Amino acid sequence: MSEYIEHNADGPSVGLVKKETFTFDEGGSGLTLDSGRTLPSVTLAYETCGTLNEDKSNAILVCHALTGDSHVAGYYNEEDPKPGWWDLMVGPGKPIDTDKYFIICSNTIGGCMGSTGPMTRNPETNHPYGTSFPVVTIGDMVRCQRRLVDHLGIDTLLAVAGGSVGGMQVLEWSVRYPDRVRAALPLATTTKHSAQAIAFNEVARQAIMADPTWNKGDYYETGRPEHGLAVARMVGHITYLSDESMRHKFDRRLQDRVELSFDFEADFQVESYLRYQGNKFVDRFDANSFLYLTKAADYFNLENQHGEGSLVSAFSRASCRYLVISFTSDWLYPTYQSKAMVKAMKKNGLDVSFCEIEAPWGHDAFLLPNDRLNGLLSGFLNRVSNEITGDK
Amino acid sequence: MSEYIEHNADGPSVGLVKKETFTFDEGGSGLTLDSGRTLPSVTLAYETCGTLNEDKSNAILVCHALTGDSHVAGYYNEEDPKPGWWDLMVGPGKPIDTDKYFIICSNTIGGCMGSTGPMTRNPETNHPYGTSFPVVTIGDMVRCQRRLVDHLGIDTLLAVAGGSVGGMQVLEWSVRYPDRVRAALPLATTTKHSAQAIAFNEVARQAIMADPTWNKGDYYETGRPEHGLAVARMVGHITYLSDESMRHKFDRRLQDRVELSFDFEADFQVESYLRYQGNKFVDRFDANSFLYLTKAADYFNLENQHGEGSLVSAFSRASCRYLVISFTSDWLYPTYQSKAMVKAMKKNGLDVSFCEIEAPWGHDAFLLPNDRLNGLLSGFLNRVSNEITGDK
Repeated sequence: MSEYIEHNADGPSVGLVKKETFTFDEGGSGLTLDSGRTLPSVTLAYETCGTLNEDKSNAILVCHALTGDSHVAGYYNEEDPKPGWWDLMVGPGKPIDTDKYFIICSNTIGGCMGSTGPMTRNPETNHPYGTSFPVVTIGDMVRCQRRLVDHLGIDTLLAVAGGSVGGMQVLEWSVRYPDRVRAALPLATTTKHSAQAIAFNEVARQAIMADPTWNKGDYYETGRPEHGLAVARMVGHITYLSDESMRHKFDRRLQDRVELSFDFEADFQVESYLRYQGNKFVDRFDANSFLYLTKAADYFNLENQHGEGSLVSAFSRASCRYLVISFTSDWLYPTYQSKAMVKAMKKNGLDVSFCEIEAPWGHDAFLLPNDRLNGLLSGFLNRVSNEITGDK
Repeated sequence: MSEYIEHNADGPSVGLVKKETFTFDEGGSGLTLDSGRTLPSVTLAYETCGTLNEDKSNAILVCHALTGDSHVAGYYNEEDPKPGWWDLMVGPGKPIDTDKYFIICSNTIGGCMGSTGPMTRNPETNHPYGTSFPVVTIGDMVRCQRRLVDHLGIDTLLAVAGGSVGGMQVLEWSVRYPDRVRAALPLATTTKHSAQAIAFNEVARQAIMADPTWNKGDYYETGRPEHGLAVARMVGHITYLSDESMRHKFDRRLQDRVELSFDFEADFQVESYLRYQGNKFVDRFDANSFLYLTKAADYFNLENQHGEGSLVSAFSRASCRYLVISFTSDWLYPTYQSKAMVKAMKKNGLDVSFCEIEAPWGHDAFLLPNDRLNGLLSGFLNRVSNEITGDK
């Protein structure tokens, strides 16, 4: 998601948080993935905040989007210049209220922020996996998160929440482990990528693979495919915004000049912005992880994977309450896709709240300050929480 | 535009046509461009079909889109497997009727299909210009086309017609040389690129420039940046289609397989299609030309260049009749952009016909068979033509 959209924490922060890790090997047999392949052991980086209550009924798992990480809220240290990626939403008195709830967020398998992924050393070769790492799925991500939830001693999550690819994990949780989730909050997401969404991801992957330094994924000792990854990121960025938000932010304004350059420098602010975003991204992200995570998103198909082609059938496995939210200007996962999932949920008699929020900011809207979004999340979580405690 | 959308000629063809060239040097002083730079001489590749009438009043200039060429209709030879790019529209009995009109189409300056561009040898160095070629504008393209029209002895064009970047040239003609154009048909176009359209072009340019074989544009003797250009083309292709048309064409159908590959091969048809389009494009197109032509499109800003920031003021220079057409699913140049130009034309009391055609095919719709489009073009051209001859 767009780091350009940086907002200071709104209201008090949850304070200092710590990146922790959890490693499991399924009792020595290794973890079998949807591909049929096995990983000898898996490490997840994760973060928690808030306090787990005595009966362990107040845990909320937050799932990050494509290139996010486990650092959901608060600060790593006193000098930390910026908080976790959803600090607007997660903290004391915030919609996902750390005074009431115990929040867990883990970096997905396949990622590069502390969890096992293509950057990890393969214990059999003592070299990074690179593209010998198995292709993972949203199902595999959730399978690993369940091990973490087990490890934390939590039987049933109060809620699973997340936007975009995080929302896919939310949906997957709700049908894969229906007895482990009381409520699901899939935001700005879809049950399957459209051809257009796959197309954008494929172009981004091709940009990486076209970079000769990518070297078929074997670059950790020779230098990273920075140019290809920057282009890949730029493609993604356009899809996170909207025609309207780009006009609002940039229109045709020139960057540091009063006249057109008549060369191939960045004339327009939007060009400069994209170059900046691309270059900034390569400092923090691994190109192979980008390939794996986009592939997982493209492979996600809830109706095929859980309903033999029927979305109604897929949701017949679910039993939680849902809060589904889409945004008017999100053209990556347009509202019609949220409506399709809501319809399938309702056909199963599930308790579903749905809202399309009017917002010009495109797909990124779920990460931005929005009173309507805040109100919907806090109200829904209150309701679910009160149903458990009987404090209605 | 999308070659995937290949259609056999509908109805009779204009038959054999010939690529011709016209070179001018402005009496030895060279052509001065909008950048202030001068080219010693300029060659345009062009094609004509139909017959110029005695009073030379039946000439229609057709302007090609971004990566098109002068080959608008008919065949180069008996074995030619496919006709020119707008054969559906241009031919005997077709909307741009070669039985009635004399059609001219030239490859734009900056192109790579026979007209002077970055591939051309710089006479001063005897090496290809590469990126030492001056950045050209839509205005420069039209300035060169006017020399060709002069050369053909035509005082006033019956019409100028074109879609997309061709439509920009149409608009430019109508305000730059108002006494040389009776009618203008800008289709699926805009008076200026949105930030989003610039963004897509910039990502495409960055993909080319990120390819090390691009070598700052100096690659004609060392090997072309094929990977970068292929990625650039893929980006463009997505913008020529629509969410709906991609779902219709590809949805999530797999390519030559029944199950997901769990590797980075093309699993989905849409991936395979994009790879194919990218690879096919590099066989016919020059990467530097792609940079120059996208830059020209991004620079185009009719209101700034001819109206000191006011679109109404820009069209105050025009005197022709207009037929403006947009397509419902064109998200590259959405209908609101056509409506803005129509409004500015009307404020000048100009004779404007406007139609938004219902079509799911995205920006490419102007190249596809469409009875509504055919009817509008032939009716409009008949009217304009009859007004001259008095044969109403």
